[in-house]
Amino acid sequence: MAKSSRRSRVRKQYRLGIDLGGTNVMALVVNEKDEIIGEAKKKTKAELGPQGVVDRIVATAESALSAAEVDVKAVIAAGVGAPGPVNLDTGVVVEAPNLPGWQEIPLAAMLSDKLGMPVFADNDVNLGTLGVHQMGVGRGTQHMVGIFVGTGVGGGLIINGQLHRGSRYSAGEIGHTVIVPNGPICGCGKRGCLEAVASRTAIEREVSAALAAGHPSVLTELLGPEGKNRLTSGVIRSALEAGDALMTSVMSQVQYYLGLLTANLVNVLDPEMVVFGGGVVEALGDDFLEPVRTTARIYYLQQRDADRVQIVPAKLGDYAGGLGGAALARQMTSRRRR
Amino acid sequence: MAKSSRRSRVRKQYRLGIDLGGTNVMALVVNEKDEIIGEAKKKTKAELGPQGVVDRIVATAESALSAAEVDVKAVIAAGVGAPGPVNLDTGVVVEAPNLPGWQEIPLAAMLSDKLGMPVFADNDVNLGTLGVHQMGVGRGTQHMVGIFVGTGVGGGLIINGQLHRGSRYSAGEIGHTVIVPNGPICGCGKRGCLEAVASRTAIEREVSAALAAGHPSVLTELLGPEGKNRLTSGVIRSALEAGDALMTSVMSQVQYYLGLLTANLVNVLDPEMVVFGGGVVEALGDDFLEPVRTTARIYYLQQRDADRVQIVPAKLGDYAGGLGGAALARQMTSRRRR
Repeated sequence: MAKSSRRSRVRKQYRLGIDLGGTNVMALVVNEKDEIIGEAKKKTKAELGPQGVVDRIVATAESALSAAEVDVKAVIAAGVGAPGPVNLDTGVVVEAPNLPGWQEIPLAAMLSDKLGMPVFADNDVNLGTLGVHQMGVGRGTQHMVGIFVGTGVGGGLIINGQLHRGSRYSAGEIGHTVIVPNGPICGCGKRGCLEAVASRTAIEREVSAALAAGHPSVLTELLGPEGKNRLTSGVIRSALEAGDALMTSVMSQVQYYLGLLTANLVNVLDPEMVVFGGGVVEALGDDFLEPVRTTARIYYLQQRDADRVQIVPAKLGDYAGGLGGAALARQMTSRRRR
Repeated sequence: MAKSSRRSRVRKQYRLGIDLGGTNVMALVVNEKDEIIGEAKKKTKAELGPQGVVDRIVATAESALSAAEVDVKAVIAAGVGAPGPVNLDTGVVVEAPNLPGWQEIPLAAMLSDKLGMPVFADNDVNLGTLGVHQMGVGRGTQHMVGIFVGTGVGGGLIINGQLHRGSRYSAGEIGHTVIVPNGPICGCGKRGCLEAVASRTAIEREVSAALAAGHPSVLTELLGPEGKNRLTSGVIRSALEAGDALMTSVMSQVQYYLGLLTANLVNVLDPEMVVFGGGVVEALGDDFLEPVRTTARIYYLQQRDADRVQIVPAKLGDYAGGLGGAALARQMTSRRRR
């Protein structure tokens, strides 16, 4: 027993989970019990280009290992999420619209070279969804949808207990389903996408227009002269807590559209659970979801067993993606061992 | 060799595929090569209630066997599709909105009793999709969506080569995804479902309104005094072939919305192929799909490899559901043997 215990101290038992975003890189060190034992966060500095960003990712991973007091030799593997479609089999990022120069970048291989361990890459929202499914509220579900509401709206699908990535690694782009034909223009260039009416970007657009038209609101004060402060999730929460009519009205629209989206996904995929994460939802919590649930339920085609479809907050904060990376590292290495 | 050949004549080698609709029941006898060697069609007479309808299904199956000159003892199993959610494991029809009295009806067990063979039941549109995937244009695809446009709009999903039925057996209800918030009222009671703007029901509503408002159209003649003839797919085709402006305009809207639906499903599921079947599409053929393709492609988020997503007609006529039933019978019996 004692001998086995001593041995376990030197064997590889940790995993790295890395979330590469347009603004920040986050790295987590996770132990065998899926506990986060170290973390680090750095600016992405996307302007440095792919090689420069890869160096930043490596530095972030090293900081996280240092924080966890874990030697790199004790790490089994790393999983990394990138903001765009990723070929899981080759570890190549097909494209990443928010990262200049990222087309066909062999992210997994580049990181593996520098970190000296197996590295697996996937889409960041897929990994957020995997994090929720493997280490969060979605544990044990067979069919689950992850919806992440922040600057944009991303999604991930768990089908038969596995991430569904699709034939071109681009499944789960629920933010770009058209929900208002010929509606507001979206960041993707098309009109009426869900993201164009139910993201922080949409909230900012509606609030700016209303303030410019002279609607009274505490937001005038919260955003400062000429709106110099950003409309962060924290500002949204403050305005809602102050009972601001404009903010409440704008958010009601967002909740309505997210309710329709949820019903659409339930009608198409019939999951057991729809999990909401991302900055906006994490800041506002379960209260935000109640109107979403009400609208969704009205639009379910199958009303029978409607209560069995759970609509819940992820409650993983910023960690969903990194935890998903650690989960991917486990899945891929245990598959290899088989 | 000769002996083996004689034996093969007596062993079970046929399957029955049955499509139960609100109006008609169709039964197909299929051989080992998936060829249809006999078929029969009868009115459903839904007003007879579940037991009466089951008797009609049995009579239709017996007619098909008789037409095929196949003894019931040579049939391995039957697969039957019903218009509503069906529990595949128990063979119970959860509900069938168009069939009075159908709640929790053990269809597979009732048919098995009378036919003296294993019977498996599933949703009719799921089986139409399975027919396309196993015996039609979708053969060999991993991820495929079936869209059936008729009186309503139904859908089925193939994920990882298997039908995705969902957690409440109600996956694939793409006709009831909201595409025009607060749009026209749908047969399901909600507003703005895809089915409310892109089904034969929607076409009839738009045409009736335009004719009532005095728009000139060959439809006035084709539908007869006071619109006594139904706006069948055949009538739609005739009006389009005559270059009728009203029919062309109404169909353009339908094609636009089906294009948005296709893009939404491609953005969510990233399939290799989207297959269109159902009365309207079968009558109008590939020409009908060209504008659908054009719109869909505009709304794909991932434009890379967009050509790899095929949008094609099913071309199985009325047989998709019955063939799917025969395919289900094969899948379920080969699973049992394992």
